[in-house]
Amino acid sequence: MADPSSFASPDQFITKHLNLKFNVDFGSRVIRASASLTVRSLQDALTQLVLDTKDLTIKSVVVNGQKATFVLGQSHSFKGTPLEITLPFPLTRGQEIIVGICYETSPKSSALQWLTPEQTAGKKHPYLFSQCQATHCRTIVPCQDAPSVKFTYYCQVSIPKELVALMSAINDGDIPDPEDCKRKIYRFRQNVPIPSYLIALVVGAVEGRKLGPRTVVWTEKELMDASAYEFAETEKMLKHAEDLVGPYVWERYDLLILPPSFPYGGMENPCLTFVTPTVLAGDRSLASVIAHEISHSWTGNLVTNKTWEHFWLNEGHTVYLERRIDGLLYGEKFRQFKAVGGWKELQNSVNTFGATNPLTNLVPNLHEVDVDAAFSSVPYEKGFALLFYLEQLLGGPDIFLGFLKSYIQMFAYKSVVTEDWKKFLYTYFKDQADILDKVDWNGWMYTPGMPPVKPKYDMTLADACIALSKKWVQAKESDLNSFSDSDLKQLSSHQQIEFLTILLLEEPLPVSHVKRMQEVYNLNEVKNSEIRFRWLRLCIRAKWDEVIPLALKMATEQGRMKFTRPLYRDLYNLDKARDQAVSTFLQNRSSMHPVTAMLVAKDLNVDAS
Amino acid sequence: MADPSSFASPDQFITKHLNLKFNVDFGSRVIRASASLTVRSLQDALTQLVLDTKDLTIKSVVVNGQKATFVLGQSHSFKGTPLEITLPFPLTRGQEIIVGICYETSPKSSALQWLTPEQTAGKKHPYLFSQCQATHCRTIVPCQDAPSVKFTYYCQVSIPKELVALMSAINDGDIPDPEDCKRKIYRFRQNVPIPSYLIALVVGAVEGRKLGPRTVVWTEKELMDASAYEFAETEKMLKHAEDLVGPYVWERYDLLILPPSFPYGGMENPCLTFVTPTVLAGDRSLASVIAHEISHSWTGNLVTNKTWEHFWLNEGHTVYLERRIDGLLYGEKFRQFKAVGGWKELQNSVNTFGATNPLTNLVPNLHEVDVDAAFSSVPYEKGFALLFYLEQLLGGPDIFLGFLKSYIQMFAYKSVVTEDWKKFLYTYFKDQADILDKVDWNGWMYTPGMPPVKPKYDMTLADACIALSKKWVQAKESDLNSFSDSDLKQLSSHQQIEFLTILLLEEPLPVSHVKRMQEVYNLNEVKNSEIRFRWLRLCIRAKWDEVIPLALKMATEQGRMKFTRPLYRDLYNLDKARDQAVSTFLQNRSSMHPVTAMLVAKDLNVDAS
Repeated sequence: MADPSSFASPDQFITKHLNLKFNVDFGSRVIRASASLTVRSLQDALTQLVLDTKDLTIKSVVVNGQKATFVLGQSHSFKGTPLEITLPFPLTRGQEIIVGICYETSPKSSALQWLTPEQTAGKKHPYLFSQCQATHCRTIVPCQDAPSVKFTYYCQVSIPKELVALMSAINDGDIPDPEDCKRKIYRFRQNVPIPSYLIALVVGAVEGRKLGPRTVVWTEKELMDASAYEFAETEKMLKHAEDLVGPYVWERYDLLILPPSFPYGGMENPCLTFVTPTVLAGDRSLASVIAHEISHSWTGNLVTNKTWEHFWLNEGHTVYLERRIDGLLYGEKFRQFKAVGGWKELQNSVNTFGATNPLTNLVPNLHEVDVDAAFSSVPYEKGFALLFYLEQLLGGPDIFLGFLKSYIQMFAYKSVVTEDWKKFLYTYFKDQADILDKVDWNGWMYTPGMPPVKPKYDMTLADACIALSKKWVQAKESDLNSFSDSDLKQLSSHQQIEFLTILLLEEPLPVSHVKRMQEVYNLNEVKNSEIRFRWLRLCIRAKWDEVIPLALKMATEQGRMKFTRPLYRDLYNLDKARDQAVSTFLQNRSSMHPVTAMLVAKDLNVDAS
Repeated sequence: MADPSSFASPDQFITKHLNLKFNVDFGSRVIRASASLTVRSLQDALTQLVLDTKDLTIKSVVVNGQKATFVLGQSHSFKGTPLEITLPFPLTRGQEIIVGICYETSPKSSALQWLTPEQTAGKKHPYLFSQCQATHCRTIVPCQDAPSVKFTYYCQVSIPKELVALMSAINDGDIPDPEDCKRKIYRFRQNVPIPSYLIALVVGAVEGRKLGPRTVVWTEKELMDASAYEFAETEKMLKHAEDLVGPYVWERYDLLILPPSFPYGGMENPCLTFVTPTVLAGDRSLASVIAHEISHSWTGNLVTNKTWEHFWLNEGHTVYLERRIDGLLYGEKFRQFKAVGGWKELQNSVNTFGATNPLTNLVPNLHEVDVDAAFSSVPYEKGFALLFYLEQLLGGPDIFLGFLKSYIQMFAYKSVVTEDWKKFLYTYFKDQADILDKVDWNGWMYTPGMPPVKPKYDMTLADACIALSKKWVQAKESDLNSFSDSDLKQLSSHQQIEFLTILLLEEPLPVSHVKRMQEVYNLNEVKNSEIRFRWLRLCIRAKWDEVIPLALKMATEQGRMKFTRPLYRDLYNLDKARDQAVSTFLQNRSSMHPVTAMLVAKDLNVDAS
């Protein structure tokens, strides 16, 4: 089975171990590195290896200590440049070799974001963090950058001694750098085989504080108190997850709270979840990001999508588990409420992409499609909807959890495609094959737009949001006085988010309405980023020019793609704000995450280079 | 943690993959071989590797293609000879290398049994089979022969083309041997990391017949029909096991029925269970051996004892699962009955070893103790008794199974010691720590003799056996006429075995009694080997000379240690049979499995060489 996002052929050979040496140079914004890959041949007479690279300078390649010839092949717009190594001797099936590569990264490596001291909270030290998912590991390591290949890794990272290095692995101690007394070498081991996209590195003036028996939160000291408060319930969530799907096998579950330019809400790097500071709501209301990342410890990190076309296997199951944890923490009605919200998110994505866009398939075809451009909530929420639908079809939450546990046990430490999942579903529910046969699999998996069936939802908590949003949609000018601040105060912050999400699915409100909404709810002052982001979009769509500066500020200050892209896009679509959006973006692009910058440039029709 | 049974230090380095080439030479009874080990350093500045070998001739060693110097260290009576390799360059932590070794096995390799055509059922072709557990892999592969080290393997086996090779792995096709047109090369891959003791090879004129979707039974064609009948319920048992502890991850579950000289009842070689033909009872009554070996697919093969001191983790859990399968197949009363029988077996072993013998500890100290000499039913039945006791203490079978599933998920693909198990037990049953604290752990684990507490057993099925055995024990000469063949016919074959087991725990019966027993029950004609074996021991202990030839015949014709050793020992202890036992053994030792021969020689005070 070919991986459309990689040049490395996992059917010819697989990587089993990666031994890395990184020398992090903040001055030139490069990592000088060596990588030793233990590679196993799956073929006889294998004479060439192709690895993924992107923006790497390869200096030398040795195979079992013997010099090997190599060539960089033709570059591809998003796949990068294949590194073609001619082996000094042919391999037989089952034979392993050690491939050693000396190389250097580029300052424009799309996995790395180099921050100046000014871009950090402390303002004194530079900062570096990586984001490899989906296909950016190739910009820091020549590797089989394909999630079908899993390997263990060991890494020694030399950094300025006043900083701290962390990786998606277990700390294996640090030593002075024998080659430079101003530097230290941090060492890390990841003994569980992982796909390349889970390699992660951060270097900065961060500190750690213990939150639980297996959890330390790491962040700049300026964010420490807020972070420790926000994520105090991490161990409780871990225990809930273990009660649901079995023991946590990764030893440690640390958290890293990143600077605001981190492009995602969270990233499930093993042993060290990366979290955006935008979830520091001050009331723990956005901590379900942690429930999501914890759940990835089973679905995604243990059972992994074999190619990015099957990304829903990672995300759909993880959203399902995240909401099961929500249910344990806040009750079944809350789980149902979050499920309703997910359906809305899906509707939103389908609206943005268009209901006939094949990227809204649960299992899209990614042949010649950039994974980053295809990213959306579809694999998360269409995936969740399918599992939620099956839960109802097959006998309820308890019964469906039995399947999920069994699925995890079966495919733990492996990579899977949708057909593996489906086959196992049929095996597990062999007595209910007749029910399964009635599922419109083609409709769910290979058809664009909304799913063929809508699951049933308990609407208890959602109805209040619907009622209030309906009241706003239907309100005439003369009705606006009937709203008061108590409308919103009756809703939890989760319900407020949902209320705004519903309004974003409707035709834009008149500007008089959003002005009145500001008068009575004072949403401009809300700090909760999920509320703030939706509110600003609502205003822009209503063409309320006054909020343009606020929206530009949010789009600029935060790197979280989920906020940045729609805000820029909405601003760009607003005649009055178009030029301002473009010029603000051009001013700030150098401090944005390279992937976000590339995507926003596309959205704004700006030259991406 | 040191492994007292190995020279290879798993705290310095670990083997991750083994690539083997075997050339099997029946003429000289050797395997000419090469082994390439992928080895990962766990230390800095590692300059030497020590591997286990025994009776191997090492021809050359290369490290990453560079010639390396090596020396064979001082031989140890049962550990063998350490192979000390000086590395051409020092290793850092996390670094991997490929160590290539050319070598040859010895005809006296204790892992291998070479059978002449006469020793097979077909009488036409020679036959070879291996038995590596516990510490014999080192006689066929230079390796870290320690169960804490797990690796994948690939093997190419060249054999005469009229024979078939099988291994504990997935068949990866066969090709003509390019170096000899009379030979074929069979190829095998084992992609799940396994400990060395699970490497297994068989070469012979065997055929396969499909028994189920993932099962083929392999045996000489003379035994095929009987084997296919006896093991027809294998898939059903696999499904029961999966219902209990989760999915089967080894892809195939084939069976190999060996010639009678196989020393064990079964051996859980992955993908290919080895089974003694003595379980071909003709009525499927001994098929629980298969339930046992199937269960090892989880406990033992996925979760493995880290050293042989913790063998009870393999066997206790496997007996527990085997009996849970028995319960699903034949009801809870039957499970209870088998549990009672296990307690009796344990009593038998404690009697044989002596109640103060430290080898009857659940967790024995094996420092300078040959694992083969320490082998007994203690880890099986004391281990089972502890788990059965905990099941009752902690809330019953369903609750305890939850723990077992979780334990398997946590430690799958890893190796564990008793403390890991205990710590996880306390974590899982965190709400019942007060109950667990009352368990006499020291008494159960580190004290010789019977356990400190006897679990409760449902005696429904056992009582009939006890009553009949009591009747025989208490019978005076004048009572003997009160027995009739209907006594025994009322009992199932399992109960008949139990009846005899109980009698073996009593003082020897008078010879008049066993003669009468033969008259009414005609046990001399029974084919079921478990009944036959106990019956013959009972007669010998009663000093009924007439059965001596039958007992010698069974001890000689069958290699199963469980039958052979006690029969030889009982014969040796019988004055009249001592010389006959010794001379029969000396005549037949060359056709016995080398380990059995060594142990029986010890039992009979015969020179072991």
